[in-house]
Amino acid sequence: MTAPGATLRSTCPVACTLDIVGDRWTLLIIRDLIAGKHRFGEFLASPERIPTNILSDRLKRLQHERLIDAVPYSQHPRRFDYYLSKEGRALGRTLAALADWGEKHFPGTRRGIY
Amino acid sequence: MTAPGATLRSTCPVACTLDIVGDRWTLLIIRDLIAGKHRFGEFLASPERIPTNILSDRLKRLQHERLIDAVPYSQHPRRFDYYLSKEGRALGRTLAALADWGEKHFPGTRRGIY
Repeated sequence: MTAPGATLRSTCPVACTLDIVGDRWTLLIIRDLIAGKHRFGEFLASPERIPTNILSDRLKRLQHERLIDAVPYSQHPRRFDYYLSKEGRALGRTLAALADWGEKHFPGTRRGIY
Repeated sequence: MTAPGATLRSTCPVACTLDIVGDRWTLLIIRDLIAGKHRFGEFLASPERIPTNILSDRLKRLQHERLIDAVPYSQHPRRFDYYLSKEGRALGRTLAALADWGEKHFPGTRRGIY
């Protein structure tokens, strides 16, 4: 996560991007959003079973980076629908490349709609 | 890392791929290999300053996954040149997608030869 005013670790765009999405989970949330999921419980229900605390943390980071927007759908308790911003949606090409590679490397896997 | 006989966490090719390359460092080693670096010291010298223990660990994982090959160039002490396999090289498209996205998201970054 790039804290406000944080120094980038290099001028390489790959390194900087990995500071946001370089972990086992973040791109799976982006995948789910592209697939039409919008709610906390929907992300939790995905087959990889993301832990609740990691999901909360990643949603905050994605909002901080403006890759997703949170739109309240309930005030009591306060709950949000999450939507990809234009920049978040632009990560779709990265997901497609990962999916193409994975389908070849892991026989039996099958991509969704990304 | 997929241990021998390990159960995949889902049938999603993105999730399976992220189990290998989903961290802040692994794809930077692939980037360096594509850029023509082959030795431990060359990876260490990259601007992101990968810690020695993480570099050792990631090189072992990449060999285990057959994404790189290690070719000895010295016996005493034992030292290796690392080369991408065909499968490792195929991650170039993922790197290109990450670089394209990063160049737009982080003004001032500039990609190398990937």
